[in-house]
Amino acid sequence: MKYSITVLLMTFITIQLQAYQYIVNEQRIMERILALGEHGKNPEGGVSRVAYSEADVAGREYMMQLMKEAGLEVSIDAAGNIIGSRPGKQADLKPIMFGSHIDSVPFGGNYDGDVGSIGALEVLEVLKENNIETNHPLEMIIFADEEGGLVGSRALIGALNETALSVMSHSGKTIREGIDFIGGDVSKLASVERQKGDIAAFLELHIEQGAILYDEGIDIGVVQGIVGIEWWDITVEGTANHAGTTPMNKRQDAMLAAAKLTILINEVVTGVEGTQVGTVGKMNAEPGAPNVIPGKVSMSLEIRDLSYDKIWDLFRRIENQSKAITEETGTTITFNLLDVSAIPAPTDTRIRDIIAQVAGELGFSHKRMPSGAGHDAQDIAKIAPTGMIFVPSVDGISHSPKEFTKSKDMANGASVLLHTLLKIDKEW
Amino acid sequence: MKYSITVLLMTFITIQLQAYQYIVNEQRIMERILALGEHGKNPEGGVSRVAYSEADVAGREYMMQLMKEAGLEVSIDAAGNIIGSRPGKQADLKPIMFGSHIDSVPFGGNYDGDVGSIGALEVLEVLKENNIETNHPLEMIIFADEEGGLVGSRALIGALNETALSVMSHSGKTIREGIDFIGGDVSKLASVERQKGDIAAFLELHIEQGAILYDEGIDIGVVQGIVGIEWWDITVEGTANHAGTTPMNKRQDAMLAAAKLTILINEVVTGVEGTQVGTVGKMNAEPGAPNVIPGKVSMSLEIRDLSYDKIWDLFRRIENQSKAITEETGTTITFNLLDVSAIPAPTDTRIRDIIAQVAGELGFSHKRMPSGAGHDAQDIAKIAPTGMIFVPSVDGISHSPKEFTKSKDMANGASVLLHTLLKIDKEW
Repeated sequence: MKYSITVLLMTFITIQLQAYQYIVNEQRIMERILALGEHGKNPEGGVSRVAYSEADVAGREYMMQLMKEAGLEVSIDAAGNIIGSRPGKQADLKPIMFGSHIDSVPFGGNYDGDVGSIGALEVLEVLKENNIETNHPLEMIIFADEEGGLVGSRALIGALNETALSVMSHSGKTIREGIDFIGGDVSKLASVERQKGDIAAFLELHIEQGAILYDEGIDIGVVQGIVGIEWWDITVEGTANHAGTTPMNKRQDAMLAAAKLTILINEVVTGVEGTQVGTVGKMNAEPGAPNVIPGKVSMSLEIRDLSYDKIWDLFRRIENQSKAITEETGTTITFNLLDVSAIPAPTDTRIRDIIAQVAGELGFSHKRMPSGAGHDAQDIAKIAPTGMIFVPSVDGISHSPKEFTKSKDMANGASVLLHTLLKIDKEW
Repeated sequence: MKYSITVLLMTFITIQLQAYQYIVNEQRIMERILALGEHGKNPEGGVSRVAYSEADVAGREYMMQLMKEAGLEVSIDAAGNIIGSRPGKQADLKPIMFGSHIDSVPFGGNYDGDVGSIGALEVLEVLKENNIETNHPLEMIIFADEEGGLVGSRALIGALNETALSVMSHSGKTIREGIDFIGGDVSKLASVERQKGDIAAFLELHIEQGAILYDEGIDIGVVQGIVGIEWWDITVEGTANHAGTTPMNKRQDAMLAAAKLTILINEVVTGVEGTQVGTVGKMNAEPGAPNVIPGKVSMSLEIRDLSYDKIWDLFRRIENQSKAITEETGTTITFNLLDVSAIPAPTDTRIRDIIAQVAGELGFSHKRMPSGAGHDAQDIAKIAPTGMIFVPSVDGISHSPKEFTKSKDMANGASVLLHTLLKIDKEW
C-alpha cells in the first residue's frame, strides 16, 4: 500500500516535471531588453521611443529580425501592428495571440511594453528550441502606438475612428501619417479588423507599473481586468470678494468648498472595501490672487474600478454628500461628466485560473489584482478571451527612466506566459 | 424746581442745535459724485480712472476748479497730491488735514475715494457758506495714486522708495513717469515729507467696501484702524504618481494635504473671537492632470487683523496643527513669509470717541469696526492722530462698476466729518 502511494506520487511528480521542463532563458531576455533599449536611448538611462519616430522604426526592425530568426512569418498590418505567425497542427483552430508593445512615452523606461514583447518572443524561442508544435496557430503581436491611445489594438477591434487618426502624436506626425510612416496603410484599416471568435485567446505579459507586487514581495500578478475610468470636470462657484473687508461669516468661499469636496472624495473612495481609486489631480482657484476670496474653482475628479457600477455608486455618494458642503459654504457645485470614459475590461475567468495554477505549480507567489493602467489587452478583451500577467516594478515607478524590473522577474513572467499558452493550447 | 430743569434742558438743546446747525447739501454731493464720474466713465456704469491716465488728469482738474471756488489756495505737491489750503485764526497751530483720493481701479466704481474727496470739499463749502473761521489752518488733500499702492500718502511720510517709483502702473507709465505727468516733480519728492507733529489731526471719510454696515443697517462706521496684513506662500510637497496604479493607501497626495490645510486655516481663523480674517486665494496643483496624483501644490495664505500679535498667534496655531496633516498624508508643508506685510495702523482713540459722539448727537447709528482694506489714512496714522469714518456700501460691493452708496449715507458721512473737524478744531 505504501509502495503504491509512492509510485503514484512519483508518477505525478514526473508528469509535473514533464509539463514544466521547458525553461526560458533569463540571460537572453535581459540582453534583448538592453539591446532594444539602444533604440531611442535617452541620457537619463531610459528611452524616448515614441510611436512613429525614427527610434520606433529602428526598434521595430530589431524586433522583426529576431521574430524572423525565431521562425515566424512576419508582416506589418494596415494599422502598423507587427504580426509574427507560426502554424499549428490543427489548421481549423483559431490562433492564440500574445504580445505587447515597444513604443514608449517621452522620457520613458525600458520595461513598459518591452517586457511583454521580449517575453512573447522568448516563448517562441523556447518552442523552437524544443521543437514544440502547438495545436493552435500562434500569432505574436507588437501593437503600434500603445502610449498614444491603444491605437493598434483599437484598429484590431474596428474602433479606430477618423477623429483619432487626426490626433497629433509626440512624433510630430498625426496618427494617420504615423501609421503610413511605420509601414501600415491607413486606406486599408478595415482589413485588420477581427471579429468575436476570430482569436482563441489573447495573452499579455506586462510590468505592473504600480508598487503592489514589489511592496508585498509577490512574483506574479494575475490581472482580473483593466479598470474602467470616468472623469468629471467639477466647477465650484461662490462669490469672489475682498479678502480684507469680507468677514469670515459673510463669505461664499469657493476654495473652502473645493477643499471640503476634495476631502469628501477621499473619504468616500476609501470608505468602502476594494481596490477602487479616486483622484483630484487638477485644482485652480479664480481669480487666484492672495487677497481675493475665490469665486470659482475648477477641479477634476477621476474614479477607476473594475466595476462600472461601483464607479457610479461612489460618484453618486460624492454627489449626494456634496450637497451638505454647498449648504454650509453658500456655494454651488456642478459635476460635468467628460466623454473619455473607459469601460472596465475584465479578463477571462478561466484564463485567470490557468495563470494562477501555472504560477503556483512553477513555485511563484501570486496575487489576483486589477490593472489600474490601460493596456491593449482591454481592447482585445472585447472580442476574445483575454488573460494578463503582471511582474513587479521596482518601487512601482513607471513612465520614467527610473522604471526597472529585475531580470529574474521578467523570466518568471515569460515562464508563466509560456506555460499558460501551452495549457490553453492543450486544453481548449 | 421743575421750571429750572426745563430751562436747563432747553438751554442744553439750544447749544446742541447751535453746534449742529451747519447742514451739508446732499443734492450737491450727489451731483458732484456723478459729474466726477464722467471722467473715465466706463460702459458698465462705473469708472476706469486709473492713476496717471488722461481721465485721472481730467478728474483732478474738475476737483481743483471746485476747490478754488470753495476759496482754497490749491497746489500740486512734488508727489502729485492736490492740496487745498485754508488759513486758520491761529497761525501757530498745525493744520488739520482731511481728504481721500479720486483715482480708481480698472473697471472700478464712483464711490471708492470719491465720497471722501467730495465729502471733504462739502465740509469746506459749508464752512464758506456759514463764514466759519477755524482756529487751525485746514488742508484738504486728494492723494495721488491710492490704488497703485498708497503712493501719495507714502510720499507724504517719506516712505516712497526708488523701487516703488519704477513700478509700472495701470496707465502704462511707471509711477515715476506718472507723478511728473500729473504735475508732480519726482526730483523734489523730499520736499513733500511731513514729520511727526506737523499735522494736528488727519481725517478720512470713505465707503466701507464691505457689507457690515449695510447688512446691519448702521449709518456710520467708527474705524478702529486699518488692519495689518501678512502673506505667506505655502508649498505642499508629496509624490506625483499614476492615479490608476497607485492604491489609495500608498499615496502621498499633495492636493489632499492642501485641502486639509485649507480647512485647518478656516477653522483656526474662525475658532477665536474677533474680526480677523484668513484667506486661501491661490491654489495650484502640479502637474495638474486629472490622471496624476499631485506631487506639489502651491497656495497662498493671507491673515489680516488690527493686532499684529493676533495675526502671528493665528499663524503659529496653523503652522503647529499642520504637522498632523503632514504626518497623516506623508507630505511636507513649507510656509514662506512674503515681504509685503502691512503693519496694523490703529486710529487715534480720542478721535474715535469724538466721531462716535458726533455721530450719536447727529442721530446716526454707529459701530466701531476695523478697516479690512488699506487706505491712505494708514500711512498718515504713522505721523499724526488719525480718524476714519465709514459709510455703508450697498451689498458690500466695491472695486466694481456695481459699487454704490446712497446719497443720504454720503451726506451723513460728510456731516460727521464736518462736525468731527469742528470739534477737534475747537477742543485741541
